[in-house]
Amino acid sequence: MAVLTPRATDFPRWYQDVLAKAELAENGPVRGTQVIRPYGYALWERMQAEVDARIKAAGAQNAYFPLFIPESYLRREAEHVEGFSPELAVVTIGGGKELEEPVVVRPTSETVIGEYLAKWTQSYRDLPLLLNQWANVVRWELRPRLFLRSSEFLWQEGHTAHADEADAAAYARRIAQEVYRDFLTNVLAIPVLVGVKTRRERFAGATNTMTCEGMMGDGKALQMATSHELGQNFARAFDIDYLGADGARHLAWTTSWGCSTRMVGGLIMAHGDDGGLRVPPRLAPTQVIVLPVRDDEAVVAAARELVSSLTDAGLRVRLDARPGLSFGRRVTDAEIKGMPVRVEVGPRDLAAGTVTVVRRDTSVKTPVPLAEVATRVSAALDEVQAGLYAEAVALREQRTADVTTIADAAAAAATGFARIPWSAVGEEGEARLAEDALTVRCLQTADGEIPAPGTPADELVALIARSY
Amino acid sequence: MAVLTPRATDFPRWYQDVLAKAELAENGPVRGTQVIRPYGYALWERMQAEVDARIKAAGAQNAYFPLFIPESYLRREAEHVEGFSPELAVVTIGGGKELEEPVVVRPTSETVIGEYLAKWTQSYRDLPLLLNQWANVVRWELRPRLFLRSSEFLWQEGHTAHADEADAAAYARRIAQEVYRDFLTNVLAIPVLVGVKTRRERFAGATNTMTCEGMMGDGKALQMATSHELGQNFARAFDIDYLGADGARHLAWTTSWGCSTRMVGGLIMAHGDDGGLRVPPRLAPTQVIVLPVRDDEAVVAAARELVSSLTDAGLRVRLDARPGLSFGRRVTDAEIKGMPVRVEVGPRDLAAGTVTVVRRDTSVKTPVPLAEVATRVSAALDEVQAGLYAEAVALREQRTADVTTIADAAAAAATGFARIPWSAVGEEGEARLAEDALTVRCLQTADGEIPAPGTPADELVALIARSY
Repeated sequence: MAVLTPRATDFPRWYQDVLAKAELAENGPVRGTQVIRPYGYALWERMQAEVDARIKAAGAQNAYFPLFIPESYLRREAEHVEGFSPELAVVTIGGGKELEEPVVVRPTSETVIGEYLAKWTQSYRDLPLLLNQWANVVRWELRPRLFLRSSEFLWQEGHTAHADEADAAAYARRIAQEVYRDFLTNVLAIPVLVGVKTRRERFAGATNTMTCEGMMGDGKALQMATSHELGQNFARAFDIDYLGADGARHLAWTTSWGCSTRMVGGLIMAHGDDGGLRVPPRLAPTQVIVLPVRDDEAVVAAARELVSSLTDAGLRVRLDARPGLSFGRRVTDAEIKGMPVRVEVGPRDLAAGTVTVVRRDTSVKTPVPLAEVATRVSAALDEVQAGLYAEAVALREQRTADVTTIADAAAAAATGFARIPWSAVGEEGEARLAEDALTVRCLQTADGEIPAPGTPADELVALIARSY
Repeated sequence: MAVLTPRATDFPRWYQDVLAKAELAENGPVRGTQVIRPYGYALWERMQAEVDARIKAAGAQNAYFPLFIPESYLRREAEHVEGFSPELAVVTIGGGKELEEPVVVRPTSETVIGEYLAKWTQSYRDLPLLLNQWANVVRWELRPRLFLRSSEFLWQEGHTAHADEADAAAYARRIAQEVYRDFLTNVLAIPVLVGVKTRRERFAGATNTMTCEGMMGDGKALQMATSHELGQNFARAFDIDYLGADGARHLAWTTSWGCSTRMVGGLIMAHGDDGGLRVPPRLAPTQVIVLPVRDDEAVVAAARELVSSLTDAGLRVRLDARPGLSFGRRVTDAEIKGMPVRVEVGPRDLAAGTVTVVRRDTSVKTPVPLAEVATRVSAALDEVQAGLYAEAVALREQRTADVTTIADAAAAAATGFARIPWSAVGEEGEARLAEDALTVRCLQTADGEIPAPGTPADELVALIARSY
């Protein structure tokens, strides 16, 4: 396991080592861009499949809007253009000619989608109009970091229009809970905290931003998904109005919400250990890796048979019998890539009618009779899923302190999260914390829920942390 | 059915009408860009799923490379830069500053992927290296047309590196046949002709381009997918070399291959009729649409029950019981959207224990006893799939003429395809045909196969047509 820098020695370097050794991603040639390698992309494809199914279950339909947005569109919503201007990539030449109006590469699509929501929203019968797109977006980054902060990233962005404020608010909240929180906790095994952003941390143009915040292995927070109520800001800027049942025209209320390849970074940092990545089984592109101990015909044949019987049992299984690589190298590779369960097949085991099942999270090895492999491996996968989640919960609890003063919050946030009454912080305290690179990650109710609109400030708890 | 311009009256206008009335796509705000609406995108998602499964079966892995490519990369392969320069979109401003080196928005990714193939190809053991990405690309279009020719489009692009020429050639051919031809004929039900491009029509930088050409409803050809052998052109430009088993370094041989949202345009034009789109059942996002004849509680309940029993039978089924729309409007909508089979549920039918099953391709209505609906609908879907394919074959045969002179080829190509010995055309004849906007779509063997490398010119047949 000496191939990676230990996490305790240098966490950021460990992260870079995992990216390289697990063959997840590397830098692109243009500053801040990234190349997502096949294993990293396979993780993202599984995230897409799980999130997409939840989005569709919430009634939204996928569509696709253009990469290029007229510069003038961005200017229509004042806060939005102010928030995104410093990060824009601008196309000034097209087809060999200087363009009359420069074109922005989308940093997000509220504006261009707003234009079409306006077209398609005629009557109250057209509402709610629930759209989502899977796309790349560009935000010029000065301090890029693979998966976490890159000039181009992949994401989904949902955009919806509703007849009234309550419906918009309920839908944005539904997405935060039924799509993001459900996926992040039940598939990614990250016990995210869900709350609302302070005014200072809100999305540019939103009236309310809900967020899912996860704790990483170094105690820092990562914002893993957000869901915004946009009020009537974009409806006003793009004339998204409709004919009501009352015969009068009304402005619609809109929402937007997204999660991105940043979640791959979160997966690495929330669950990784000094041996590499640890992928929760429900997400894993390969749940079970079968390794013949040596390059022996009978052993490889037995391993192959095992792969097909486990595949028939509905698991995602792969054989690693690469002839050029020693058993030890193949074990290390499976560990670095975080495959949840490893099945080792050796000649001595086979003679005894068993194989060895190894859990990635605990490294515990168990001899298992061949006839029981499918059920025992399935059980081990469930245990790894639960085990990773329990470890993440334990870390978060151990590194979260309940405090009452800003000074204590700052001290606690040096190693984890601080929970403090929002009334003890306020916008002024928030500004002071910012000087030490500490932010209010979200505001919650005392029992850790998303506060209802209008919850009095003195009933809110602020979560303070360093963050990515 | 008066909602669409008849095809015979004005085919291009019929195409625009279908795009609008079937809610498939519309123009984006920046010239040449497109908005793909939910139903259009659902067609594309089904295409992606089918093509992706075939690509994975051919051993390639998905990855993701950056949207932005340094301008200097494109210049490294002379033909490539010459071919793409006129179509480039160039980013000159990033993060509020003029960039030192302008950045090109990818028109295709041979160059940037070449850089990484070079990095990852160390030894012969790393080969073949088989990659694919699903991405958007930009080619500035002067005469844009939704789905067929847009400044931004969605596609997959495969990029592979091989140890020798024969392996590269075999893989490019395998992709043309097992991925593209198989998908286009067996799922899209379009009897494409597969052959090689002439030197004039080859991809910029390729040594051989294989193509799948379909006949549209107006007799014109549409290039629906291509697979290129790139020889050592990109390997040389990007130093893609490897250490051979012989201990010496060798240049690799590369391929690239792609298909795009253009296939949605092909689907519309190959199968559409005056009533709208006709979607082959194996592709259709909705294979069966169930329509209650009236807004009556018992009828709608029976329709709902039917939807769940057909869904349980493994079909993709949707209910259309929108209260605001008359039965006639809902029928027209299902027809325009080309849903392969429609099941109408009415009170009189129900009393008789039957429903009415309607095939979209033939409009034939059949009363079917409730107990038999699942098997009869499944059978109808198979018939529609076969029927659309047979119609497309019949059209192609009826509109294809075997000729021996260029004059006759030009005459035949006014309404369809001309097959002519390549020896009667040659590069000079090809240039003359180009003056009348006629092109050699591909070269085939006499029995319609992809010619093997080095097939003598006088054994080749040229397929000549107008094209999109």
